[in-house]
Amino acid sequence: MARYKINIEYDGTNLIGWQENQQGPSVQSLLQDAIYKFCSEHTEVYSAGRTDAGVHAVCMSAHFDLEKEQNSETILRALNFYLNGEPVVVLSCERVSDEFHARFDCVKRCYKYVVLNRPMNTVLQNNRVWWVPQKLNIDAMKMAAKDLIGKHDFTSFRAAQCQAKSPIKTLDVCEITQNGDEIVFYFEARSFLHHQVRNMVGTLVDIGRGKDLDINKIFDAKNRSAAGINAPASGLYFMRAVYSTDDDNKSL
Amino acid sequence: MARYKINIEYDGTNLIGWQENQQGPSVQSLLQDAIYKFCSEHTEVYSAGRTDAGVHAVCMSAHFDLEKEQNSETILRALNFYLNGEPVVVLSCERVSDEFHARFDCVKRCYKYVVLNRPMNTVLQNNRVWWVPQKLNIDAMKMAAKDLIGKHDFTSFRAAQCQAKSPIKTLDVCEITQNGDEIVFYFEARSFLHHQVRNMVGTLVDIGRGKDLDINKIFDAKNRSAAGINAPASGLYFMRAVYSTDDDNKSL
Repeated sequence: MARYKINIEYDGTNLIGWQENQQGPSVQSLLQDAIYKFCSEHTEVYSAGRTDAGVHAVCMSAHFDLEKEQNSETILRALNFYLNGEPVVVLSCERVSDEFHARFDCVKRCYKYVVLNRPMNTVLQNNRVWWVPQKLNIDAMKMAAKDLIGKHDFTSFRAAQCQAKSPIKTLDVCEITQNGDEIVFYFEARSFLHHQVRNMVGTLVDIGRGKDLDINKIFDAKNRSAAGINAPASGLYFMRAVYSTDDDNKSL
Repeated sequence: MARYKINIEYDGTNLIGWQENQQGPSVQSLLQDAIYKFCSEHTEVYSAGRTDAGVHAVCMSAHFDLEKEQNSETILRALNFYLNGEPVVVLSCERVSDEFHARFDCVKRCYKYVVLNRPMNTVLQNNRVWWVPQKLNIDAMKMAAKDLIGKHDFTSFRAAQCQAKSPIKTLDVCEITQNGDEIVFYFEARSFLHHQVRNMVGTLVDIGRGKDLDINKIFDAKNRSAAGINAPASGLYFMRAVYSTDDDNKSL
């Protein structure tokens, strides 16, 4: 048996999300199908994050096992050959220790959320951003973002179907930057609750639209209805999974 | 009669380019159809640049006349209503002098070209970049870019079907910036020859790949075959048309 770690980019627009089920194409099923076409092995691919339908990944990490060891570069080329035309591309593939686990060994997950804030919609960034036509108050959003950082009970920002044992999470980074019409929200944490990023962005955008919401009061309420709306999936990108074994993790 | 100036964003991927003909949907025909649906007037839309099939616009300027004067905001909303689902969106609409001409009054045209320079292809930026897997030498391209700036005979960078009277053009800006895997080429000039930007980018990328090409020798040759390849349309964006009447043109 040999274990491989892959990094993947995907366009989530027409996918049902990471996880395989009977409803349509998922990142997991497309990868597993490509692996099977390559080496006739049925294997399960485990990822750092199980993104929802419509959510993208600039660089998602995952692992899988093969009964018969293969050259990493051969796997990389073969998977991209069989994925050609699908909205998934494998960026890298490396042989890793049998102990490595893409989900459980991940020490930091990084997400980006992109809002297009201008009166008119876009065709060039269709399905890549959340279009918000009303002018947002960036300063108000930046102030509120500070209150999200740290260790909190994120019950108010958690989806009803969230399966995490505890709602207590530590948000390490929550940064908002503006570049012309684009507002980019960037988040880092060891892990997130289901819909947490989209619920945080939706709440910040509600605040940017002038809604009178106080992050600390929302935390205290421990009730999903206290927070703002769930931002659409189209603006969300899984950016990176960091592992304690990464060569470059010292710089984090 | 009333004249209107519009700014437009478009995704050129499935368009035959700016200009209307019988071969498929063009930006011009989509706009003219939307205007007709709105006010039952057949009018011709003139643009600052007549981009080719596959070329995008972040902000193209154009003008058209209506027999019956209409409110600019009404036109803007109506055109976007009738363009819904098409790869064109109108960003702004304003009533202008009957003397204004989107093509002949344009004093500066700005283009951007995006190369994705990494071993693996992309799904998130499919049809938005030119994927070049071989590692490019940025310093060599920057050196060569300097030689392109200024007043030259651009015959070697001109398409065979180019209809411009003179091949003499003045390139004001040619900048190359790198942002991670992305290399962005930015150009400004009063006007460009047909395929000039794509031929300049193709030549610079050939130089970045290590091909021994000298820009000054290419100019001297006055022969298209002396320059490098024509870069694909997918990476090219018309960014902005500047007019002498623009309020902000002092800063240029």
